[in-house]
Amino acid sequence: MNNHLVIMAGGVGSRFWPMSTQDRPKQFIDVLGCGRTLLQLTYDRFRGMMADENIWVVTSEKYGDIVAEQLPMVPRKNILLEPCRRNTAPCIAYVSWRIKAQDPRANMVVTPSDHIVMNVPEFQRVIKSSLKLTRENDAIVTLGMKPNRPETGYGYIEADLSSPSIRNKEIFRVFSFREKPDFATATRYIQQDNYFWNAGIFIWNVGTIVNAFRVYQPEISDPFESLLPYYGTDSEQERVNKVYEKMKSISVDYAILENAEEIFVHPADFGWSDLGTWGSLHDNSKRDLYNNVLIGDNIKTYETWNTIVHCTEEKKVVVQGLDGYIVAEKDDTLLICKLAEEQRIRNFSED
Amino acid sequence: MNNHLVIMAGGVGSRFWPMSTQDRPKQFIDVLGCGRTLLQLTYDRFRGMMADENIWVVTSEKYGDIVAEQLPMVPRKNILLEPCRRNTAPCIAYVSWRIKAQDPRANMVVTPSDHIVMNVPEFQRVIKSSLKLTRENDAIVTLGMKPNRPETGYGYIEADLSSPSIRNKEIFRVFSFREKPDFATATRYIQQDNYFWNAGIFIWNVGTIVNAFRVYQPEISDPFESLLPYYGTDSEQERVNKVYEKMKSISVDYAILENAEEIFVHPADFGWSDLGTWGSLHDNSKRDLYNNVLIGDNIKTYETWNTIVHCTEEKKVVVQGLDGYIVAEKDDTLLICKLAEEQRIRNFSED
Repeated sequence: MNNHLVIMAGGVGSRFWPMSTQDRPKQFIDVLGCGRTLLQLTYDRFRGMMADENIWVVTSEKYGDIVAEQLPMVPRKNILLEPCRRNTAPCIAYVSWRIKAQDPRANMVVTPSDHIVMNVPEFQRVIKSSLKLTRENDAIVTLGMKPNRPETGYGYIEADLSSPSIRNKEIFRVFSFREKPDFATATRYIQQDNYFWNAGIFIWNVGTIVNAFRVYQPEISDPFESLLPYYGTDSEQERVNKVYEKMKSISVDYAILENAEEIFVHPADFGWSDLGTWGSLHDNSKRDLYNNVLIGDNIKTYETWNTIVHCTEEKKVVVQGLDGYIVAEKDDTLLICKLAEEQRIRNFSED
Repeated sequence: MNNHLVIMAGGVGSRFWPMSTQDRPKQFIDVLGCGRTLLQLTYDRFRGMMADENIWVVTSEKYGDIVAEQLPMVPRKNILLEPCRRNTAPCIAYVSWRIKAQDPRANMVVTPSDHIVMNVPEFQRVIKSSLKLTRENDAIVTLGMKPNRPETGYGYIEADLSSPSIRNKEIFRVFSFREKPDFATATRYIQQDNYFWNAGIFIWNVGTIVNAFRVYQPEISDPFESLLPYYGTDSEQERVNKVYEKMKSISVDYAILENAEEIFVHPADFGWSDLGTWGSLHDNSKRDLYNNVLIGDNIKTYETWNTIVHCTEEKKVVVQGLDGYIVAEKDDTLLICKLAEEQRIRNFSED
């Protein structure tokens, strides 16, 4: 009854331009072509675990209407709007104080809105296992994905496998968080069995995280504490806006996790991807016999391999003779680019 | 005063799909990105040679409004509508009888609407030179383009250079018309100096062509002759429609030119192309330093060579890493195809 879900949906997804744009970033798009947006898929994978009135979405003020449209079952008052981007720490602090004002016994899951999970039953098992620990304990639990390649695009969690939690043998103390490594370092990490990808999914009870902010980030906690009389009132938004303007921009990893005691990791293996690149979308999508990912209702290919075509449903697309490309079409923009050059897409979109 | 221009604008341009579609074929499109459609460029290159009321366009009934919109100076009654496609012979017969009914002394130029000419002053000189001959003589004059490559996509005209017209030393008798040759034959043709590309541009006086139809194609001439009382009346269209339905489909080359006496060719060299292929569009358009043709207002390329991008003005396009491709976008369709495979585009559009 006290389980709450927080979905962070404020990202801009610039690496997926032009599919993802400032007006409608990746989490609001049916990236996989399955009929559900990434935000909706995120909601779906928690089905049955929380009441809809305990589901919270934190997003930019300009995406509030999109969230309400895509998740109509989430109460409008649970869609919290950020007036500006301040990274994950202020976002999590805001929603934590907001939830605490209403339910001081809340047990929370915090998740990004633009990742995918293949094995949802296993995901739910891991979340439940973590929530069970945090219901009664002051633990900060992160999910650690079992790595299957020396990925340099993720942060890593170094676990102390000799030190499982007394109450949950699947959950271990964290030795350290490691930033995105170079290839050699990543290769070394994955040869050991106690390094995990940091998926940015956190489980804690509201008292634990609020206290952690009070201890490690008083600059962040004080303003949100001072707003306690106003949460849920008509002046909440206006007052939150003022607080946000002055807030520093910092990730929860830097602000809390790297400082706090009682940090745990729940190793897990449920087919996770942050879909951070076109390449990862390619890897995680249904492919045809020629290793193409074709997302769109009317795409024909000839002599085409290892290519992603992503377009709006109304578009007829014929592609001949491409190998290893991204073809992405959205509204008034068309991108054709080698998959191997996708890290330049952000620059293309700025040009 | 008796000069008339006939523009044949009934083609469907299927090789330029998706830029060219059944709803708006290539002649009605600004293919070159110069601000004028191919039909308008055709009109432009005859400027000053005929009065607007002597300009005739024969097209499909479904393109009548497009012609009227693109050539508002041409009287609407001069836009003749074909109810179905019957190749060039019935088209030319219809407009010839129609013109004869109004101006029995008409001297005519017949031209396709989807070709381009680079050197317009030279073009005008050649047309005037030909019209001068046909004004007083029963000659059928074709324009023969000086070939610069062993093109297998054109028909050839074999001229008798020893036999210039008595009245115009630039115009010669035709030995024979040759269908599109294979490569070896085309190579042999261009090594001789009396083979020319058949550009499908004809000059004759109306009496000559009407008589030729009477002699060689009574099946075609009889119906149009029988409509003489109705040209220019309210019942013209209805009666023409009935005639057309039963008409055989045949080109003027087969129906008349290969049979008639007094066939002449005016060799010419004014930078002509029938723009029959994307390759010819590439060859005849303004190219950037990397040999790309970029038609559209907002196209950025990176590491891209020998490529044509043709898109609507509103579209932003980013292309990276293509060499030798066609990228064409129109309304609800996108084509990406190797230039070398462009002969398959017609099939793609049918698939």
